[in-house]
Amino acid sequence: MCSEPHRTIAPRSGAAFTLDRGQRLTVIDPMGEQVADLLAFNRHDTAEVISSGRTLDYASRIYLTTGDPLYSNRSNVLLRIVEDTVGRHDFLLTPCSAETFRIIYGDTDPHRGCFGNLAAALAPYGILPDAIPVAFNCFMNVPVDAATGALTVAAPLSRAGDHVTFEAATDLVVGLTACSALQSNNGSFKPIHYVISG
Amino acid sequence: MCSEPHRTIAPRSGAAFTLDRGQRLTVIDPMGEQVADLLAFNRHDTAEVISSGRTLDYASRIYLTTGDPLYSNRSNVLLRIVEDTVGRHDFLLTPCSAETFRIIYGDTDPHRGCFGNLAAALAPYGILPDAIPVAFNCFMNVPVDAATGALTVAAPLSRAGDHVTFEAATDLVVGLTACSALQSNNGSFKPIHYVISG
Repeated sequence: MCSEPHRTIAPRSGAAFTLDRGQRLTVIDPMGEQVADLLAFNRHDTAEVISSGRTLDYASRIYLTTGDPLYSNRSNVLLRIVEDTVGRHDFLLTPCSAETFRIIYGDTDPHRGCFGNLAAALAPYGILPDAIPVAFNCFMNVPVDAATGALTVAAPLSRAGDHVTFEAATDLVVGLTACSALQSNNGSFKPIHYVISG
Repeated sequence: MCSEPHRTIAPRSGAAFTLDRGQRLTVIDPMGEQVADLLAFNRHDTAEVISSGRTLDYASRIYLTTGDPLYSNRSNVLLRIVEDTVGRHDFLLTPCSAETFRIIYGDTDPHRGCFGNLAAALAPYGILPDAIPVAFNCFMNVPVDAATGALTVAAPLSRAGDHVTFEAATDLVVGLTACSALQSNNGSFKPIHYVISG
């Protein structure tokens, strides 16, 4: 997979692209400890989108890895995880946004975050900001305290070169970022690489 | 609150209604161990809806209770929890649906579930099924194993007469159910009562 030419998402930015049914998308953390928020929409009807609520319900798990499908809001499988060298990703939290930075970080002139980057990248596909749900946040490490329910955004477990590979179960529009939140990426902003194959 | 006349949602059904800013909605479990899925939309622009991903991120907790706001997909507060006699609700899972019953329970002729009940109740407000996100599932008890991420749908902690009260931070359309999934309600289907005050 890594012999194929990769594309690069610069730090604190995002991209959108299509995947055909059967194609694979490999998301690579080239330097380690960098999160990539992923969204996937049915390319032929973008009102259908990945759903954390359906996926976690059917998996009976909040942490997904190799073998797990990502279901849509219509309970169809949009993607399957087919390789995963990390095994810790988040599917609870929405992409960071200007409001995230204002509310959690207290920023007065906040960056537009993964939310703004995804909204801009997905706009040419006719996808509106309000339609952006909880993303599958590759490499994001969100431990949950079972007793209190407290969640923490901890350093990703990914090391340089780690990757997670998805196979498209239908034709998709995909949004992908190099995450813009300091805490999610252990204090620094790094690029994300990705490869489309098949 | 309980001296005011309540309305009843019959077992395995749902309702939708409006709340004005400042009004309170009390959701009562009259028999105990019965879940009620709640959705709230900005009445003046129903593309704005409660967001589990934003709310859990800002709360840094998956279990919400008295004092916690429910944020929208635009990071505005739509509701605040102002009273809660139980302290255990779910905000991870989507409403049960025909697909839930097929995929998880193996039903061949499935009930339409809370999803179908909400879709039918919200249709007169112009809200489409695809716009139904993760609901705030009153009284639903979903413990998470911190090490593996495994989640279980356990018996609700609510006893007869327990309630949770929300205050509307803006004008809302609300959808509310008496949940239709056996496992969520410890094996039987019961009604839900609610009171609107203020």
